[in-house]
Amino acid sequence: MHLLGGVEAGGTKFVCAVGTGPDDIRAEIRFNTTTPEENLAQVIRFFQEHHAQTPLAAVGVAAFGPLDPDPSSPTFGYITTTPKPGWAHTDVVGPLREALGVPVGFDSDVNGAALGEHRWGAAQGLDTFVYITVGTGLGGGGMVNGKLMHGLMHPEMGHMQIPHDWDADPYPGFCTYHGDCWEGLACGPAIQDRWQFPAEELPPGHPSWHLEAHYLALGLVNIICLLSPQRIIMGGGVMQQRHLFPKIHEKVRTLLNNYIQKPAITEHIEEYIVPPALGGRAGVLGALALAEAARAGAPSGHQQSAEKS
Amino acid sequence: MHLLGGVEAGGTKFVCAVGTGPDDIRAEIRFNTTTPEENLAQVIRFFQEHHAQTPLAAVGVAAFGPLDPDPSSPTFGYITTTPKPGWAHTDVVGPLREALGVPVGFDSDVNGAALGEHRWGAAQGLDTFVYITVGTGLGGGGMVNGKLMHGLMHPEMGHMQIPHDWDADPYPGFCTYHGDCWEGLACGPAIQDRWQFPAEELPPGHPSWHLEAHYLALGLVNIICLLSPQRIIMGGGVMQQRHLFPKIHEKVRTLLNNYIQKPAITEHIEEYIVPPALGGRAGVLGALALAEAARAGAPSGHQQSAEKS
Repeated sequence: MHLLGGVEAGGTKFVCAVGTGPDDIRAEIRFNTTTPEENLAQVIRFFQEHHAQTPLAAVGVAAFGPLDPDPSSPTFGYITTTPKPGWAHTDVVGPLREALGVPVGFDSDVNGAALGEHRWGAAQGLDTFVYITVGTGLGGGGMVNGKLMHGLMHPEMGHMQIPHDWDADPYPGFCTYHGDCWEGLACGPAIQDRWQFPAEELPPGHPSWHLEAHYLALGLVNIICLLSPQRIIMGGGVMQQRHLFPKIHEKVRTLLNNYIQKPAITEHIEEYIVPPALGGRAGVLGALALAEAARAGAPSGHQQSAEKS
Repeated sequence: MHLLGGVEAGGTKFVCAVGTGPDDIRAEIRFNTTTPEENLAQVIRFFQEHHAQTPLAAVGVAAFGPLDPDPSSPTFGYITTTPKPGWAHTDVVGPLREALGVPVGFDSDVNGAALGEHRWGAAQGLDTFVYITVGTGLGGGGMVNGKLMHGLMHPEMGHMQIPHDWDADPYPGFCTYHGDCWEGLACGPAIQDRWQFPAEELPPGHPSWHLEAHYLALGLVNIICLLSPQRIIMGGGVMQQRHLFPKIHEKVRTLLNNYIQKPAITEHIEEYIVPPALGGRAGVLGALALAEAARAGAPSGHQQSAEKS
């Protein structure tokens, strides 16, 4: 087994690991997300220490975005137009490749987590599935036809528009770009902002959770209608409230109203919308899976076609 | 070139053609959609006449749905749970294969049209794009990573949920399953039902068109956020109102609010959301493209994986 490095580059924290898979993590480090200069130096220092002992075969980075995952693009490996202060147009892959001299895989945090769940978790054997994270932000990635989702860029699922009943919920939404898009209504900070309590302090019977399940279910219905996934995996801090799952299952079935007559939805929805099998480790393990793909010559989790706009 | 047969099986009419591609259609017939028995007999009679003169290498069917496009399923080739009276659980492929003795390709009308546009039209060279039809119904299909979209079943894009301002538009929607889903708000019959005029009789300056463009744009924004397509092709009867395109372009850009910084959207949206290059012939030509794929051994427009739920 080749030794790999993985970087989960999140909006609030970085996690770096060295290992070969979920049962063989040899070292791990966490630090807060600050500036590109400081964080990239921390990442490089961590990997260089291990690289000096046992050479790493490749490194993978699963990062917040928007970013450029297209290896044929001049800005491949950049975090691009993120609103996060200091991080717009940051070359992430270049400094790592230069310092370590190994292939560096790069994709969105959610595509990375999706690849990790496909390699070792709840999406093994599937070719079309979605991974959603609900936390500081709300995002989604996944595979269609056996390859990670890219297209023009990469999905930005959190920014879809869903119904918002202003009478029932006058909260205007948290998204600086779109107000009450899916992320704007249902991400962790939106819960806190709407109820003036952190999500983790709201008890399971609080009305906030029915509203949250309702918004999450609306987005999932759209994902089901647009992508027809074989499974949806939901991770992130907010989804650690496991009582959300049965609420979401019920609301998705109610909203679909038996239109899509597949037993996976009509009979076994609790196996259709599931938590990550890798738990909170989906992110950093996904980065390891990206490293594995990069070692095999696919810098963005799969072979790219030549035609990109 | 192999001679192929194509069937566009629509909810209101059938179109059958014999040929090899857009520049070589040797015969064509149209008839109204009535019952499965009558329509399948008409299809078989048409192809048998030609088959007796010049053998057909394969036939393709692009049909209304929901349907089963999975060749590994016992109900492959069926229209399944359609609400259309008389058509639920209809085996379409079986009778054609039996009568003609050739491979029969089968997929949704929109996936068929997408394949036709990929083979001969506005999606040549792309690997991730969407084809939308807005007419009697509203549906979408397409390709992701170079293969037609299937997954658990096939997309049912018309049934996604979009924001609906009941004060501005008290119309409750036309969908029998979901009321004001995308199709329920924006399909042709919804326009007629809301304004009490057929869409084609409403002048371009009528407020109906701004509302229609608004609803269509909301759905397109969700498609862009969820799928990141390299292009979106919009066909169907309603989209023959070409004045809708600039209205849609403007509204999509306004709704996205510069979040997705790709020149395809920010600078060249008129080349990003486009009419079908094959015009009203995308459907039947898509069926020919499905026939071509079936002849090559891919009964549903592409090679299937073994893992389907």
